[in-house]
Amino acid sequence: MMDSLYTEFVEQSRKIADLQYAAAVLEWDKETYMPAKSAEIRSQQIATLSETAHTWLIDPAYENVMQQLLEQKDLSENELDNVKIRLKEVLRLKKKTPAFVRKMSETVSKAYHKWIEARRKNDFSIYAPALEELINLKKEEAEIYGYEEHPYDALLQEYEESASVEMLDKVFADLLPGLSEILEKYKNKNIDTHFLHKKYDAAKQLEWGKYLAEQMGLDKDKTRLDISEHPFTTNFSATDVRITTRIDENDFSNNTWSTIHEGGHALYELGLPIEEYGLPLGTFTSLSIHESQSRFWENCVGKNGAFWYHYLPEAQRFFPEQLSEIKLEVFMQAVNRIEPSLIRTEADEVTYHFHIYIRYLIEKELIAGTISTKDISKIWNEKYKELLGIDVPDDKSGCLQDIHWSIGSLGYFPTYSLGSLYAAQFWDKLKSDNPNIESEISNGNLNTTLQWLRQNIHQYGKKYDSEQLCKKVTDSTLDSTIFLKYLEDKFSK
Amino acid sequence: MMDSLYTEFVEQSRKIADLQYAAAVLEWDKETYMPAKSAEIRSQQIATLSETAHTWLIDPAYENVMQQLLEQKDLSENELDNVKIRLKEVLRLKKKTPAFVRKMSETVSKAYHKWIEARRKNDFSIYAPALEELINLKKEEAEIYGYEEHPYDALLQEYEESASVEMLDKVFADLLPGLSEILEKYKNKNIDTHFLHKKYDAAKQLEWGKYLAEQMGLDKDKTRLDISEHPFTTNFSATDVRITTRIDENDFSNNTWSTIHEGGHALYELGLPIEEYGLPLGTFTSLSIHESQSRFWENCVGKNGAFWYHYLPEAQRFFPEQLSEIKLEVFMQAVNRIEPSLIRTEADEVTYHFHIYIRYLIEKELIAGTISTKDISKIWNEKYKELLGIDVPDDKSGCLQDIHWSIGSLGYFPTYSLGSLYAAQFWDKLKSDNPNIESEISNGNLNTTLQWLRQNIHQYGKKYDSEQLCKKVTDSTLDSTIFLKYLEDKFSK
Repeated sequence: MMDSLYTEFVEQSRKIADLQYAAAVLEWDKETYMPAKSAEIRSQQIATLSETAHTWLIDPAYENVMQQLLEQKDLSENELDNVKIRLKEVLRLKKKTPAFVRKMSETVSKAYHKWIEARRKNDFSIYAPALEELINLKKEEAEIYGYEEHPYDALLQEYEESASVEMLDKVFADLLPGLSEILEKYKNKNIDTHFLHKKYDAAKQLEWGKYLAEQMGLDKDKTRLDISEHPFTTNFSATDVRITTRIDENDFSNNTWSTIHEGGHALYELGLPIEEYGLPLGTFTSLSIHESQSRFWENCVGKNGAFWYHYLPEAQRFFPEQLSEIKLEVFMQAVNRIEPSLIRTEADEVTYHFHIYIRYLIEKELIAGTISTKDISKIWNEKYKELLGIDVPDDKSGCLQDIHWSIGSLGYFPTYSLGSLYAAQFWDKLKSDNPNIESEISNGNLNTTLQWLRQNIHQYGKKYDSEQLCKKVTDSTLDSTIFLKYLEDKFSK
Repeated sequence: MMDSLYTEFVEQSRKIADLQYAAAVLEWDKETYMPAKSAEIRSQQIATLSETAHTWLIDPAYENVMQQLLEQKDLSENELDNVKIRLKEVLRLKKKTPAFVRKMSETVSKAYHKWIEARRKNDFSIYAPALEELINLKKEEAEIYGYEEHPYDALLQEYEESASVEMLDKVFADLLPGLSEILEKYKNKNIDTHFLHKKYDAAKQLEWGKYLAEQMGLDKDKTRLDISEHPFTTNFSATDVRITTRIDENDFSNNTWSTIHEGGHALYELGLPIEEYGLPLGTFTSLSIHESQSRFWENCVGKNGAFWYHYLPEAQRFFPEQLSEIKLEVFMQAVNRIEPSLIRTEADEVTYHFHIYIRYLIEKELIAGTISTKDISKIWNEKYKELLGIDVPDDKSGCLQDIHWSIGSLGYFPTYSLGSLYAAQFWDKLKSDNPNIESEISNGNLNTTLQWLRQNIHQYGKKYDSEQLCKKVTDSTLDSTIFLKYLEDKFSK
């Protein structure tokens, strides 16, 4: 009886997952191989899958099975975790009425199209009214979800359960002065980067990306690397995880570090326990931990001299004309150059967090109602001047640069910074657990690194939230001084 | 009220289609790009989609909407057709109990695996017991569906509503003597085909396939050509139709005529009315008509001297080394060579139908109970000797060659022959409607041909069954003498 009820829970959970992953296959196909003229019907097909999965998630019979399972007392620890976590997700989902969900979907659609138009015309004011409507709805959503301290917490926790305004304010207060110091100390050194912008053949770059992915430990029989307009990672199970890259023939960096970044995301998904398919323990825990995995590989490993000690000769083998003359030291200086710039996705490891902080500040105040949508562009530009010392020439290079607001993702941005911080903290712990790790990496051996991540992070799925996991792995909660030490260590070289 | 009830019918039909097409996307991905190790979970995801679509199809509420619509009297003709045809499909589906469906699925799974093993070990007897179990279940299925004359009719009509044993017996009785005559007259001429087996670079062949598909009128923004183990066509709407090809570097023919064949299937799907998405009028009418479209392009057009008058020079441009010395006459003789052989999929236009006939004969008698499963191999080999004059050396080249039985598709084979016959009849009518059509084709203009098919066949979807459509297009029912005349005309050249 007991057993069959849990089996029922698992079966229903997996049917829901099957639908959600099927929608993800349709999305992946849409971004990679789908012929252009079927976009409209494809969107409708994806909507049917998502809506059906949603209906099944909030089906009272499904909730009832979970409630019954909790009343019984003989579930194993993992079974109990699966039921508890899923029930919590379902109860959160059910707070929103179908009418609210529809309203949000319509408003997002309008805002998204206005954002596209505003970007094309390079004019924030075109987007502002639709964004305001969306912000108002997000405020309403915060009230629906409920919060203790700050309404922004309710939105934030959609992506990052263990974060809050209180926590983030402290993180940034600790972080920013140190970052400013590092920026002042190391920026604008006269660094040669021209060799990164020679002509790099597209097909060769794709081969190079596939080589890197394989070196990182992505099993070729469980992954693919394809080309899309924006790089992304998606998974349809822990045995089918796909990454994409973008290739610019005049840029060695974009494809290289995009692939390593997405490869880090993919290794996380590939490391989740397949026997928990469709259940919380088979799912990543939070966006910041996901981002910690991509930033870990991209920056801690992939912008490390030990890594390139082995892989620069390999890159030279792929691109002899462009790179054979380049010494490791020169290469590493170019790779780790710090310079304030306008676009987040192209920012270095130091200035990156000013971009995030400015977004966070604006989001938080929009939701609190202490600033107004129409002032975003002005505030944005002032903050860039104040914190990064640069003038924003137009909205396209400013507050219109990212898609997130237009699709209603308020509360998402801070996870990027948290991800970098967790990454540095994990990297620090890996090094203290394995004092020879950099020497191993300099021999092209990345397996100890991967196994450490599998063992300490991947295998747990959603069992621990970000802060619990951080504590378990590093014996400490989030500590931004470790990130600052990591940067100082890197740039003082 | 009226209007909204039909809208409800359309919406539910489209949701079902969305799920079925999503399953098709997952299948396509499985055959083209999916990493190997995710086969198991992918099958489960596809099963969830298919089962859910099935549940929705047989939902009493859906049937009830259709019954109500039929009671009302003010549907348009097309609306009425959609409701009537769909209701008939649903009522047929509902005849099978869930227990029967499960039993069939398990039996098919067992038979399929035994077939794989039997092929590997080249021994029909390994497969025979599982096949017998499957045949018994198919007999049961025939009883469930019901029939008037012959139990095989019930299975046949799953694929081909207007066909029956009575009809097929007559078709083959008319066809076979004529085919034997043509075979005797034209076989074993001393024909040079060596140039078709030179080395043809795989990438170049794929380019050539894409070129051919485009020439046929496949819109690049609505189609793709990819590589898979077995060529197939699949569609996810009339705006997203995909074909695949198989490439052998030592064979010009396989990729060329596979691509043209699948291209013919694809043009049919692309010509269906998109506004009828998810409804019977937006769907192909039958397998034989689908096959008529692929055989039309592959044989009537694609093995026609007029076609190669224009396209041989193009092929020579793609493959100068291999083909530049080859004269049109020599090329056409090689292309249209007749020779009895063991494998259906590699057979010429004449001997092909002996393969089909032998299968049909065996299937029919198995279902009637006049022969027994264990004798298949013996009967097969005797019939090949009797009708094609060749000795079957082993089961792998004999009765184990095709997948159809192992997946329970009894009744499918005859549609291949019907398709060729309909194709010849449509081709005949196209030529009489457009006396200059071959001269147009010889100028590389395939558009009149395509438009004629769109106008006469594609646009109707499932409105007419095969025989009604044939009558409407050609003013005659199926007439195998036209096919014989078409062959005589071709081979006497």
